[in-house]
Amino acid sequence: MANPGPEMPPTVEIINTGNELLDGRVLNTNGRWMARACSVRGLVVRRITIVGDELEDIKAAVEEALAREPDLLLITGGLGPTPDDMTARAIAEALGRGLVLSEEALAMVKRAYERLSLSFSPAAEKMAYLPEGATPLENPVGTAPGILTEHGRTRLIALPGVPEEMEAMFKEHVEPILARLVKGLVHYEAYFLVHGVREASMAKILEELRAKYPGVYVKTHPRAEGGRYYLVVYVATVAKSASEARKGLEAVITALADHVASLGGSFLPYKPEE
Amino acid sequence: MANPGPEMPPTVEIINTGNELLDGRVLNTNGRWMARACSVRGLVVRRITIVGDELEDIKAAVEEALAREPDLLLITGGLGPTPDDMTARAIAEALGRGLVLSEEALAMVKRAYERLSLSFSPAAEKMAYLPEGATPLENPVGTAPGILTEHGRTRLIALPGVPEEMEAMFKEHVEPILARLVKGLVHYEAYFLVHGVREASMAKILEELRAKYPGVYVKTHPRAEGGRYYLVVYVATVAKSASEARKGLEAVITALADHVASLGGSFLPYKPEE
Repeated sequence: MANPGPEMPPTVEIINTGNELLDGRVLNTNGRWMARACSVRGLVVRRITIVGDELEDIKAAVEEALAREPDLLLITGGLGPTPDDMTARAIAEALGRGLVLSEEALAMVKRAYERLSLSFSPAAEKMAYLPEGATPLENPVGTAPGILTEHGRTRLIALPGVPEEMEAMFKEHVEPILARLVKGLVHYEAYFLVHGVREASMAKILEELRAKYPGVYVKTHPRAEGGRYYLVVYVATVAKSASEARKGLEAVITALADHVASLGGSFLPYKPEE
Repeated sequence: MANPGPEMPPTVEIINTGNELLDGRVLNTNGRWMARACSVRGLVVRRITIVGDELEDIKAAVEEALAREPDLLLITGGLGPTPDDMTARAIAEALGRGLVLSEEALAMVKRAYERLSLSFSPAAEKMAYLPEGATPLENPVGTAPGILTEHGRTRLIALPGVPEEMEAMFKEHVEPILARLVKGLVHYEAYFLVHGVREASMAKILEELRAKYPGVYVKTHPRAEGGRYYLVVYVATVAKSASEARKGLEAVITALADHVASLGGSFLPYKPEE
């Protein structure tokens, strides 16, 4: 069952590999970018995992994610030409498959090297070895092809870790898959700023609203800026139509606004920076 | 064995909870901040996991991390007063312990409410329930105490997800623990920018250097900016003394500089933005 019914949003897991993410030198912007791209289309991201460049660590993370059977497993990093680029091998081992030279991938790498006026090398050929049965994904920016394959209900896609390459390949290769997975689901969301009310005073109404509108996600986030306390309130829903989505959201927002007003607080629409 | 020998850097896992991280609304700056704080002190971060606010998801992530037996397990988020703040319960269940009212934690919450001129409520009392046997950690900024406990060789510490609170509590409560764990290990690192050489041309020398200097971590990162390709080279080591650390690093850096020069490229020291 690759496509669940539209009542059940398809699920995603993300694995970002790279010691530079694990030791805090680099912020995991890839994970966040992918998570956002999936969420706004109505998919639900269940877990984001960062592991380093070790073969065994990547393999374990892939095996664990596959055991949870997400509809989509997105992996970044470790597809390059250097010996510590282990992701293709880790995926092959996690799937119990061989790592084989793909003629199609080799042709992609050669085209990329030509486009970038580089001379081909054995290290470059390494990037054309894919898990048996996988499809290479063309890289329009860099040299390493991506990897697309399936395991049970899960589509597994590995993309390079360089953000420019990942984003271009995501748009070209992943977005059509997302569109098929969500099949007409819509995602709506809204933010509000609440001043003058503590998070603890929102606990009861949140519980009530969650029970009454299980299809609407609502959450408060306490913030402190320059010693001033306030709440960011986030409401979101995934529904089969825009009118259904709006109906649920509006009921929740009205109830929240009334509650905050009854406590003497302010409740204002808000657009966060991306 | 809570403290491994200084030859084996202590290991860390990080779990950051929160749907806002999982759906890509918010960048996981907490995970990166903690990872960096641990790495520069000589600890090795093995995995960073983001899960949502579901009890079962947090519990599973904690159980899995504990099974890998890191020296330190850092958790953020889900300690607040609302019903979806589930982290204390998830930790208790993962440890097979009860969730009990801590008088010490209750006193901390009451002090925080007084400091912030808030009136105490049952929702606030929720924040004083900790896994049995755990020590509460005072929160000098917000209201939710942190949690410190042990399981086997692992020290487990949970802190609030609000960055200002997490950072203040990390400095006060976690840094002394890091200092004891690393016992005099030092961490040295350096960055270089390489222009005019592709990553594939660095593959062989990296392999040689890794074999010759196993204590030195060296990695190339391809970057593309405005269509211009270059490499960031990162070298780092954890050693028992500054002189030992410098010796290893210098040998690797010299070899890399010579190799890049032999290929006609440029090799320049570089300080990345934090």
